[in-house]
Amino acid sequence: MPNPSPPPAAAAWRDFDIVEVSAAGWRARPDALVGEEPLLIELRHGPPRDRRRTPLAVTLRTPGDDTDLATGMLVTEGIVKSPREILAIAAVEANVVRVDLHPDVVIDEARLRRHGVVSSACGLCGKTSLDAIEAECATLPAGPTVAAGFLHALPAKLRARQELFRRTGALHAAASVGLDGELVIAREDVGRHNAVDKLLGAGFAAGPYPRVLFVSGRAGLELVQKAAVVGVPIFAAVGAPSSLAVELARRVGMTLVGFVSAERFNLYSHPERVLP
Amino acid sequence: MPNPSPPPAAAAWRDFDIVEVSAAGWRARPDALVGEEPLLIELRHGPPRDRRRTPLAVTLRTPGDDTDLATGMLVTEGIVKSPREILAIAAVEANVVRVDLHPDVVIDEARLRRHGVVSSACGLCGKTSLDAIEAECATLPAGPTVAAGFLHALPAKLRARQELFRRTGALHAAASVGLDGELVIAREDVGRHNAVDKLLGAGFAAGPYPRVLFVSGRAGLELVQKAAVVGVPIFAAVGAPSSLAVELARRVGMTLVGFVSAERFNLYSHPERVLP
Repeated sequence: MPNPSPPPAAAAWRDFDIVEVSAAGWRARPDALVGEEPLLIELRHGPPRDRRRTPLAVTLRTPGDDTDLATGMLVTEGIVKSPREILAIAAVEANVVRVDLHPDVVIDEARLRRHGVVSSACGLCGKTSLDAIEAECATLPAGPTVAAGFLHALPAKLRARQELFRRTGALHAAASVGLDGELVIAREDVGRHNAVDKLLGAGFAAGPYPRVLFVSGRAGLELVQKAAVVGVPIFAAVGAPSSLAVELARRVGMTLVGFVSAERFNLYSHPERVLP
Repeated sequence: MPNPSPPPAAAAWRDFDIVEVSAAGWRARPDALVGEEPLLIELRHGPPRDRRRTPLAVTLRTPGDDTDLATGMLVTEGIVKSPREILAIAAVEANVVRVDLHPDVVIDEARLRRHGVVSSACGLCGKTSLDAIEAECATLPAGPTVAAGFLHALPAKLRARQELFRRTGALHAAASVGLDGELVIAREDVGRHNAVDKLLGAGFAAGPYPRVLFVSGRAGLELVQKAAVVGVPIFAAVGAPSSLAVELARRVGMTLVGFVSAERFNLYSHPERVLP
């Protein structure tokens, strides 16, 4: 299983200029955000005279150990059983790993598609990914604004609504918040993206979309993308955002707030919607 | 957007018999685990005389608010823009939501597949899902065993290796642990499934697979499934397991440990591999 070229350098983390809000006041500072970029895993397979290319997956991951990730996915998806079946594996671009498989390895595309592994084309790959998302989202108008105290109060209010979490200790929650600071709808799910979809689906018929969306976990690209599609202007999270989430929020004009607690929070984009 | 029938009752949480290990000793008790089951979302679309069925997605979710989840996914995937486009939506079985779309709604299957939304068939649906996974996994032989103190020591050891987490506060980690209690390989990623794939991929060429796999977060079905495919006998997690993860671990003979800390842990399946 030779690895002829080292993976190109990619950013496992990157510094962003943010505003930290705490009892010590408002302070602009750089902050390291975890890298999150799409990786295309491409297979070369088939008999020597009829080699084919099949995209195995495009997965959002933290750059680094990309050939390990591709190898692990091939193993845990049951495609490869022995190291000898991987003839070569290499990061051919910053966000592309190519795997040459032994001719004996059979790729059952129908099975892969059934498992949701194969994507027939690369929809979220390379430098065009944020451009494509941005094109589907209207740029947000200015406003509304909320006070810092509005954000500090959210975690306790959400915890009071997390019935399943109290029972199981294992749930993600998402809530829409009115400009009066009260939770309008709250939803829980074992999957963070499902909690957001349930929330947005519950409010769809009544409309309009939340002005403030608050989640119990981290703010990854997929969640911020869902909020951007429906035009949420303020996205607040108990946890950290990813670098790609901050980039998307900055592009579409969304205020992204992370590490929200009773004592502090960080503003990652468009801080003008939050007042002292 | 009528909802003619209420969703069938499904389990948002379920009680399991577990063993709680703490300073107070070993105690068998029931424990509520968060429900995690596959939901099939099926679309009916097209002109009145040529209605078609397309499976939109099979998603692992916590049962409850299933029609909200389907609605939200349609909205955040850009398929539906207005409530009038959903003629009817109903949970037709415990794990199936059917959506009748207005004839004007165009389903671009190529685009959905590109985004990884559509799965062309239902691979993980209904009561056969665990059967299918189980069929791909060998049942684990007895052993090895570890002492309770082995498990209590893992969180501090993993934190010492989480360089990116210390920098960004936003990473999942997974580690393989030798029977001497030392971490062999550790990997981090913004996605918990990626951390496990990187770990298993990194050790693939050298083999054998980890005897103990430890993760910094929760133990959902997908992670336990990956470990089962490669025959990991002991899976330990800082967070809670889902109900489906426990069911799979019990079936394949894996010891599943949750809420691992210096003071306590819970044994959800095959406790015989853990000694006082």
